[in-house]
Amino acid sequence: MATRGHVITCKDPVLCTMPHRRFILGVARTLRVFFRVILGHEAAGIVESVGECVTEVQPGDHVIPCYQAECRECKFCKSGKTNLCGKVRAATGVGVMMTDRKSRFSINGTPIYHFMGTSTFSQYTVVHDVSVAKIDTKAPLDKVCLLGCGVPTGLGAVWNTAKVESGSIVAVFGLGTVGLAVAEGAKAAGASRIIGIDIDSKKFDVAKNFGVTEFVNPKDHDKPIQQVLVDQTDGGVDYSFECIGNVSVMRAALECCHKGWGTSVIVGVAASGQEICTRPFQLVTGRVWKGTAFGGFKSRSQVPWLVEKYMKKEIKVDEYITHNLTLAEINKAFDLMHEGDCLRCVLSMHT
Amino acid sequence: MATRGHVITCKDPVLCTMPHRRFILGVARTLRVFFRVILGHEAAGIVESVGECVTEVQPGDHVIPCYQAECRECKFCKSGKTNLCGKVRAATGVGVMMTDRKSRFSINGTPIYHFMGTSTFSQYTVVHDVSVAKIDTKAPLDKVCLLGCGVPTGLGAVWNTAKVESGSIVAVFGLGTVGLAVAEGAKAAGASRIIGIDIDSKKFDVAKNFGVTEFVNPKDHDKPIQQVLVDQTDGGVDYSFECIGNVSVMRAALECCHKGWGTSVIVGVAASGQEICTRPFQLVTGRVWKGTAFGGFKSRSQVPWLVEKYMKKEIKVDEYITHNLTLAEINKAFDLMHEGDCLRCVLSMHT
Ligand SMILES: NC(=O)c1ccc[n+]([C@@H]2O[C@H](COP(=O)([O-])OP(=O)(O)OC[C@H]3O[C@@H](n4cnc5c(N)ncnc54)[C@H](O)[C@@H]3O)[C@@H](O)[C@H]2O)c1
Ligand SMILES: NC(=O)c1ccc[n+]([C@@H]2O[C@H](COP(=O)([O-])OP(=O)(O)OC[C@H]3O[C@@H](n4cnc5c(N)ncnc54)[C@H](O)[C@@H]3O)[C@@H](O)[C@H]2O)c1
Ligand SMILES: [Zn+2]
Ligand SMILES: [Zn+2]
Ligand SMILES: [Zn+2]
Ligand SMILES: [Zn+2]
Repeated sequence: MATRGHVITCKDPVLCTMPHRRFILGVARTLRVFFRVILGHEAAGIVESVGECVTEVQPGDHVIPCYQAECRECKFCKSGKTNLCGKVRAATGVGVMMTDRKSRFSINGTPIYHFMGTSTFSQYTVVHDVSVAKIDTKAPLDKVCLLGCGVPTGLGAVWNTAKVESGSIVAVFGLGTVGLAVAEGAKAAGASRIIGIDIDSKKFDVAKNFGVTEFVNPKDHDKPIQQVLVDQTDGGVDYSFECIGNVSVMRAALECCHKGWGTSVIVGVAASGQEICTRPFQLVTGRVWKGTAFGGFKSRSQVPWLVEKYMKKEIKVDEYITHNLTLAEINKAFDLMHEGDCLRCVLSMHT
Repeated sequence: MATRGHVITCKDPVLCTMPHRRFILGVARTLRVFFRVILGHEAAGIVESVGECVTEVQPGDHVIPCYQAECRECKFCKSGKTNLCGKVRAATGVGVMMTDRKSRFSINGTPIYHFMGTSTFSQYTVVHDVSVAKIDTKAPLDKVCLLGCGVPTGLGAVWNTAKVESGSIVAVFGLGTVGLAVAEGAKAAGASRIIGIDIDSKKFDVAKNFGVTEFVNPKDHDKPIQQVLVDQTDGGVDYSFECIGNVSVMRAALECCHKGWGTSVIVGVAASGQEICTRPFQLVTGRVWKGTAFGGFKSRSQVPWLVEKYMKKEIKVDEYITHNLTLAEINKAFDLMHEGDCLRCVLSMHT
């Protein structure tokens, strides 16, 4: 693998988590993926070498790859309104590097594409300099790798996108890692009620540890879930979060919001081509429909801050890790995810 | 007509504008209307008598009826987050008065229902005390009647709902009274570009007087209108407003917004049962979908303030009045609206 231009090679051990199942299943549907490809986007590692013009990290630095880049100079980065940097998007969107529009991976001369600018299911990877956050070397890589996607997404959906205020009633649809991080963020924000909704009642016990105060399984009700929630909350919730990737649930999440001010945030990634629908009257009568990518966090600036918060025990990380395997056991990890008992499985290079 | 309980009778002359065509056409579709009914909701008049417990207005006061009530004591009014008072909604929604759930109108003993708590196509009407704003007696009733609906809705969509900042690029879909008031509000907010979109190019000349800086007729383009706007604005507009009531245009208005921060506000009222749709990715990548009712203005508190702004020449009103007729000529006024050359037609009781 070459390391030319604005690129960084992350050295072994790269630690990857098995990403949330919807995202990985969803990739071929929602994101354009160019095959063959090295998948993976939630990881941590150590810089092995840097390209010529790379100044902000050097070999030996501990880093978290960021599928959401942050260049600090594009229209998006400078807007002060979004974390969606546009600098390397055109290249990472099609699985190549910016400088020469080529891949840095190959097998027997055949190129293999990059994925989300990260490709972390690998001992080594190559990423753009704007796609890597330098973190505290004391942070355990086999834990903070989770701060590469799901946990920040859930926390940031609450803190940055919805800006939940103390006393709010919050509904969380889907109690996987992302939904639990939403609950954790809502608890930290002082929410008075945090209602967890999942079709898998096994999720309810563990969810209590993340701040969920009440549980609703849509399968226990004949009425549409939005009606159940409106009835239970005297008119609807103040904030709702869809953390599944199901367009019908996205609609329910909007429609369970309180008239006049309820805000719904779409976090889940739906299958490609699927659409969300509702009556416009839902919005005319004051509900707000939003979405979030990486929880609105600016990756290179804020991931190190999240790592610090973890080190100070202000946010959970270990609690989301239910399994540990090696990269060689990746297919077993996929099976675990599908069975539904796994929140995150960390794959290490050597154990 | 009785005047018991918390009711007010507005004396002749009540001045009514012909409301924006979509709204009046839309009523039987979107709002539940109980027939037979006295329509009309954009008006001004003089209090003729008050019911027993009415304290805030007295006979002789000049008032604007408010289809959006403001009681100052319900959950909505006290929330500080919305203008959607809930106090008399249950009654006005079904065409009756709160106290006895009966109508105050009849013909030969057969009750005639109220409409939107206002029923202003009439020499006399009866409204709840929370549905009337007391205004400056020096304000000309045959002008400020417009401050009962369309003009505040457009201004407030910009000032209260979207909170457009100086320098923003704004798109206005539909250049009727509501769309023109959006343009006027955006100009006052310091928007750098105000792009007016209408399928009727006749609207473009007059729209210049309200602050529209550029015009697009979707009929002049083969590409979808959202793509035309994205191309013309280097990625999309900062704020868009749908002022038509067409669900396809509502989608276009969202999708012409800039990734990362663009906000779209639905102002138009669609036909009953129709739905808005989009890909959830539009929201996940930072666009925000909202709506507005009466521009978010608290009616009794803020309509008098709008009247003051008109008296100080800080907002336009006269410019939206293209025709003046008498109430007896109401059917002619409907025809005028359908022909498309009319913005607002004021109907007076005596001329
Ligand atoms: N927007 C972003 O930046 C971003 C970042 C990370 C993850 N995501 C997305 O967030 C979503 C959640 O990720 P995760 O890792 O927590 O996934 P997960 O699969 O671990 O959790 C999903 C949960 O939803 C539950 N569920 C499934 N269908 C349901 C239904 N109809 N009603 C109620 N509950 C239902 C499942 O039982 C499960 O507990 C995924 O779609 C993922 O792609 C988005
Ligand atoms: N949300 C609220 O509180 C509120 C308040 C008042 C009015 N409204 C609604 O606002 C809307 C506008 O009211 P108005 O009085 O300005 O109506 P109007 O009929 O005078 O104006 C509508 C304009 O849209 C144009 N138009 C129609 N179809 C179009 C298309 N496909 N693309 C582009 N332009 C198109 C027409 O040529 C016309 O100029 C109505 O739906 C009304 O019910 C809502
Ligand atoms: Zn950038
Ligand atoms: Zn992820
Ligand atoms: Zn009220
Ligand atoms: Zn109106």
